[in-house]
Amino acid sequence: MDTIRTKTSSESSVIMTELVLPNDTNVFGNLMGGRLMYWMDIASALAASKFCNSPVVTASVDNISFEAPIKLGNVVYIEARVTRSFNTSMEVHMKVWGENLQTQVKYKSNEAYYTFVALDANNSPIRVPQLKTETDEEVRLYDGALRRRQLRLILGGKMKPEEAQELKALFS
Amino acid sequence: MDTIRTKTSSESSVIMTELVLPNDTNVFGNLMGGRLMYWMDIASALAASKFCNSPVVTASVDNISFEAPIKLGNVVYIEARVTRSFNTSMEVHMKVWGENLQTQVKYKSNEAYYTFVALDANNSPIRVPQLKTETDEEVRLYDGALRRRQLRLILGGKMKPEEAQELKALFS
Amino acid sequence: MDTIRTKTSSESSVIMTELVLPNDTNVFGNLMGGRLMYWMDIASALAASKFCNSPVVTASVDNISFEAPIKLGNVVYIEARVTRSFNTSMEVHMKVWGENLQTQVKYKSNEAYYTFVALDANNSPIRVPQLKTETDEEVRLYDGALRRRQLRLILGGKMKPEEAQELKALFS
Amino acid sequence: MDTIRTKTSSESSVIMTELVLPNDTNVFGNLMGGRLMYWMDIASALAASKFCNSPVVTASVDNISFEAPIKLGNVVYIEARVTRSFNTSMEVHMKVWGENLQTQVKYKSNEAYYTFVALDANNSPIRVPQLKTETDEEVRLYDGALRRRQLRLILGGKMKPEEAQELKALFS
Amino acid sequence: MDTIRTKTSSESSVIMTELVLPNDTNVFGNLMGGRLMYWMDIASALAASKFCNSPVVTASVDNISFEAPIKLGNVVYIEARVTRSFNTSMEVHMKVWGENLQTQVKYKSNEAYYTFVALDANNSPIRVPQLKTETDEEVRLYDGALRRRQLRLILGGKMKPEEAQELKALFS
Amino acid sequence: MDTIRTKTSSESSVIMTELVLPNDTNVFGNLMGGRLMYWMDIASALAASKFCNSPVVTASVDNISFEAPIKLGNVVYIEARVTRSFNTSMEVHMKVWGENLQTQVKYKSNEAYYTFVALDANNSPIRVPQLKTETDEEVRLYDGALRRRQLRLILGGKMKPEEAQELKALFS
Repeated sequence: MDTIRTKTSSESSVIMTELVLPNDTNVFGNLMGGRLMYWMDIASALAASKFCNSPVVTASVDNISFEAPIKLGNVVYIEARVTRSFNTSMEVHMKVWGENLQTQVKYKSNEAYYTFVALDANNSPIRVPQLKTETDEEVRLYDGALRRRQLRLILGGKMKPEEAQELKALFS
Repeated sequence: MDTIRTKTSSESSVIMTELVLPNDTNVFGNLMGGRLMYWMDIASALAASKFCNSPVVTASVDNISFEAPIKLGNVVYIEARVTRSFNTSMEVHMKVWGENLQTQVKYKSNEAYYTFVALDANNSPIRVPQLKTETDEEVRLYDGALRRRQLRLILGGKMKPEEAQELKALFS
Repeated sequence: MDTIRTKTSSESSVIMTELVLPNDTNVFGNLMGGRLMYWMDIASALAASKFCNSPVVTASVDNISFEAPIKLGNVVYIEARVTRSFNTSMEVHMKVWGENLQTQVKYKSNEAYYTFVALDANNSPIRVPQLKTETDEEVRLYDGALRRRQLRLILGGKMKPEEAQELKALFS
Repeated sequence: MDTIRTKTSSESSVIMTELVLPNDTNVFGNLMGGRLMYWMDIASALAASKFCNSPVVTASVDNISFEAPIKLGNVVYIEARVTRSFNTSMEVHMKVWGENLQTQVKYKSNEAYYTFVALDANNSPIRVPQLKTETDEEVRLYDGALRRRQLRLILGGKMKPEEAQELKALFS
Repeated sequence: MDTIRTKTSSESSVIMTELVLPNDTNVFGNLMGGRLMYWMDIASALAASKFCNSPVVTASVDNISFEAPIKLGNVVYIEARVTRSFNTSMEVHMKVWGENLQTQVKYKSNEAYYTFVALDANNSPIRVPQLKTETDEEVRLYDGALRRRQLRLILGGKMKPEEAQELKALFS
Repeated sequence: MDTIRTKTSSESSVIMTELVLPNDTNVFGNLMGGRLMYWMDIASALAASKFCNSPVVTASVDNISFEAPIKLGNVVYIEARVTRSFNTSMEVHMKVWGENLQTQVKYKSNEAYYTFVALDANNSPIRVPQLKTETDEEVRLYDGALRRRQLRLILGGKMKPEEAQELKALFS
């Protein structure tokens, strides 16, 4: 019998710390969005891989809004953890901050959701553990995951808006 | 008097071609999503910068869904062009393909929208030209830009779902 | 029977667009020649590989003269296409421009010819298609290819100057 | 009075040793020509800069013919030294070898000439020292420099073939 | 009056998580020691900089012994924190692990001490806060710092072995 | 019978020359210690590999003290050679200089010892040649190697201080 494993969100937690170097910046001396999304992809892939103990590939990235530019020489913190798993996929939530170590000003850069699919050695999707929530924050993220998934499916052309019950409720 | 400049989408067109090298790939020998988003950020920033003739910074990235993995040694094509401009921001649409040059199989990887803000030398947002559509495809992208913008504002917490007239229509 | 395939130059066309980042520049803030030649090698290898649908290796690089420095933050455009094929090798011509997206000044950096050999899975040279010219420009490049090839052979010590009929004509 | 400094070729000598890493290689596991030309650009720029004690920029690269592929994990040796100086420019000659440290097989990859211009702080070309030859090999390289320079000027469209006395002699 | 600030070790804590990519590995597919030391330098510099709120430069690195190789595709964890400060310098201790996310085997790679000097905007060393220990482990690291410092001074030729009271005790 | 090969230190000699580029530097425009240790790891690994004609892995790094910062645009010289071999390991000594090519000021950055183990194709340690000294300097380095090895073993927790005869003599 195939018992379904469960795992907690905290078991998937990854903290990444990076220093903004010259080649990471645009002409304003700010971290380029693309370089940040590269780091976020690795941080969240590691969180997903810790959760399912398999290699994973990036399936999708949700809308990201960059709030405050991160400056050359500042530090980037990325905290990533799985919020919910589906059959073979996992949603990972990230919070990203910048920090000026001299002034000790720490500022939020953005939040994001990346989704990953677990693969076996033959590149076929495989079952992942179910997520067991432990905190109110985790419950909130777990519950929102369905709505975000519907939005992904609609935006990816795989679901019709009128079928997205969770989303429809939002707009009426 | 401050006459408003207009520009066409084709004036902003950027074509980027990249080769997938070992360090761009995950354990499956596939291009990592983060590396691709890095290239897409540069391609779309160049398109936005060509459009407004100012430096730009990435403001947001819309939902991206990765359809087919791009393999080590394959080629990545990114076509980027501005679809619509607002006061100080521009939406850029990208199409991304992979190609195996040996088999000549060219496959779609994903489509995406990145948004940029134009800045002057003091890092203040500045007016950008208005986009003048030329083709049916451009009109379609131009019209959809309002709806995507509402979605961005809602997802970024800057608009309430019930105020998003364009989107509401979709769900009822 | 082994029919010889033909291909057009335009079927091999590759457009590469790159942004000059800090680590690409020398102390003057100009793109280093070596970094540009690296990008050119990839652009032209892709053009050759598109032409013959096999992997290729760089066989030689013709004299390159750098005319205008490309500045940090500017864009580099490389247009590459095959000009003529021989038994197992192909000559690729490239035009390289820089552009300041703010001032919209686009300036020529250099032109160059790289030569590639097509290899099979055992690293042995293989037959490549013949090039069929379509425009006057392509005919001009096709015709010049013989002369450049003689020069390559002489400079590589594989032909004696007095045997280079095409070149001799030039000097008398 | 402006006495002209002289320097020897050996005062400009630079030895560079690099290890071929995965990202430097093509699908055959061979060092990409473009990556090698990047290293050669830095090695020769350092030789030119040691010679004139000013920053330099790459002016041109002569025909390079790649003889033997350098494999992943092998070592690249580049020996660079100035062969002759003109008013504000210097020709640098390089020899490049690969070596398999396990089998101790050392093999020649190519020879090349890069030309550099010395610049002052305002980006204006400045006088460089004259080269004083010390060995027969250096005399041979010094004498050949004129002929190579004529070829560069012809190929760069700055001299007519019939004016190139040194070259004409070769072809008749 | 110049009151001396105090800070705790935990205020300097930095956690860095990196993924081992192809270009980070040697021919055995193991993370190269030099690449690891590069990441460790950044992790510990950030810890020192968080502690003193100034930019810092690496002054010295203590003996590092690499215990278990970290494989391609595995994760590297670096935990860094200041153990003791002197007038203008800080010692940072790091623990480094590798982890195979598939098998969940986490293994120790090494421990290390890097030392940093805090600099002001004129590149002059400046006073740093004093460290206040909070745990037994921190007391142990704090106490050992003197002995390690004597060893550094001896190995750096700035102290005679016979003057190193702390160390002498060890050997008799 | 297994005759033991001998090799000289000079047979292992490696000279590496690198240019300090923007991404190699910290906010002061100085070469980061970690980047230098990365280059030193490759230079010394090549020296060890030349000595034993096998692939090698970094076993340990001795205390390094950074004396003078190397500036952006300056040159780094690393000279590496094996000082002594043990059964399956080799100690490599390095001298590192920086040089400002404009002022011709060449300054010492640091000296260091890295230790490597030779491995066969199955990742098992293999016998390495014995080192035969040729100069007084080499004898001095050879003799000191035992003392440094004891220190490494003590610092790595593999020897008790009271057993280190060579070291004990130093402190009494």
